[in-house]
Amino acid sequence: MKQRSGSSATVAFLGPEGTFSEEAVLGNMPEGDYHPFPYPSIRDVLKAVESGEAALGLVPIENSIEGSVVMTLDSLAFGFDELRIVREVTHQIHQQLIARTPVDLHKVTKVISHPHAYAQCRNFIREHLGNVEHEATDSTAEAVRRVSRVDRPWVAVGTKLAAEMYECHVVAADIEDAEDNRTRFVFVSRDPAPQDLDVRYKTSIVCGIAHDQPGSLLLILQEFAHRYVNLTKIESRPTKQGLGDYIFFIDMEGRSSDGPIAQALKCLVCKLPWVKVLGSYPA
Amino acid sequence: MKQRSGSSATVAFLGPEGTFSEEAVLGNMPEGDYHPFPYPSIRDVLKAVESGEAALGLVPIENSIEGSVVMTLDSLAFGFDELRIVREVTHQIHQQLIARTPVDLHKVTKVISHPHAYAQCRNFIREHLGNVEHEATDSTAEAVRRVSRVDRPWVAVGTKLAAEMYECHVVAADIEDAEDNRTRFVFVSRDPAPQDLDVRYKTSIVCGIAHDQPGSLLLILQEFAHRYVNLTKIESRPTKQGLGDYIFFIDMEGRSSDGPIAQALKCLVCKLPWVKVLGSYPA
Repeated sequence: MKQRSGSSATVAFLGPEGTFSEEAVLGNMPEGDYHPFPYPSIRDVLKAVESGEAALGLVPIENSIEGSVVMTLDSLAFGFDELRIVREVTHQIHQQLIARTPVDLHKVTKVISHPHAYAQCRNFIREHLGNVEHEATDSTAEAVRRVSRVDRPWVAVGTKLAAEMYECHVVAADIEDAEDNRTRFVFVSRDPAPQDLDVRYKTSIVCGIAHDQPGSLLLILQEFAHRYVNLTKIESRPTKQGLGDYIFFIDMEGRSSDGPIAQALKCLVCKLPWVKVLGSYPA
Repeated sequence: MKQRSGSSATVAFLGPEGTFSEEAVLGNMPEGDYHPFPYPSIRDVLKAVESGEAALGLVPIENSIEGSVVMTLDSLAFGFDELRIVREVTHQIHQQLIARTPVDLHKVTKVISHPHAYAQCRNFIREHLGNVEHEATDSTAEAVRRVSRVDRPWVAVGTKLAAEMYECHVVAADIEDAEDNRTRFVFVSRDPAPQDLDVRYKTSIVCGIAHDQPGSLLLILQEFAHRYVNLTKIESRPTKQGLGDYIFFIDMEGRSSDGPIAQALKCLVCKLPWVKVLGSYPA
């Protein structure tokens, strides 16, 4: 277990260690004196940043196979008003077949992993480990830890990082079925991202529609289309406040301070019951 | 394990038995001579219906906490062209704490469940079972089966249905954290839904946008807004065919044969590279 460091600033991430979240944070650490630290849930990551315990937090927001991470979207929409998205990173998810020592696949007697990781390697497992018992764990890292502890022909499905952490061997690499399994993560901070970099920016907003009326969404989109603002994502979700009320998550190219976006947002604030800018950040 | 019945028609659902999918199928069986039968994956359910092995299939499409079920949406969007959504049902998800025999919570030594079910009861478990070991399983039904087999103070988190199946006791009912945890399921069939019922209908479509251009989505929505068609859901997803290309899932009130919707769809077919009607069905 890593210790909090007194001198450097914490980057909170969704634990446990040795999972894809830690791979993503280690592969994208900001420059300067920062160290990563795991938290048990997405809300705990956000709370750590809000309270100042962590300078930055990294949370998953969308996976190419599983879809949006609703816990992250809803947490940012309905709370954590001091936090801003300051950066996005995309992490390619690769599953490894991991053993304590090199092992012939036909001698393997147990496959250990989180049910989702196991399901993502269905084809490989069907072909090479067809009748082998499966044991579920709460995380891929826990699976690797377990195979590292006993001298038996067991394998885990997990990350390369966990294989290294527990000094295990990758018996078969990149065994996932889908060719394209990516997770988009966002860094959040109490301070907005610097807005003067010479790179492309993206802005994420969430807004509410009071009643389930034809044309409300059109009204929102027109404000952006008139001003040639390019939308890159739109997603409606029913709110928990009542049937027929919706919120919309919208991502667009540009900064909230850019003229066209600033004007569109100004018009939306007048017309809608609720608009919140989640952040403008390098794309 | 249930057997396929030769005489009655099969309703395929996502197994294993004793999970929320089976609760949903049993609570919403169509009238007539049908029997439910479990399949190991969403695609296997859809394949069973496509091949004629099953008359109907029930698949999850959206959860109020987890969001859209991407596997279902993408499977219906990019394949299974013969299938139509013919009905939607919403199932309230309640988690039960289940034991072989009544047990005092402070004597419990192990909690067994699928990681997601366990995570959904975080508050209850923190309060009542704070330091108790957790063991993960591939399904909530498997967890209940396990506690039913050994005479130890173990509990499972699972469905009321599984508690009944394995003749176990519900030690604490409805222990989930979220007040509102619902899953929307859809029935699919090779035959479209009857379109003459005197009820409200909903239509689901998916369409593609060739290039990531400002205004494309607006163009789609205008066709519906002009005709006063009420949209109830919209969700964009990047396609796997290339960056910058998107598909949109849109739900609306009404039938695809209703004048305004039929006209809007006709216009969209002319303007977009790809439009697919997933079904018109009683809401």
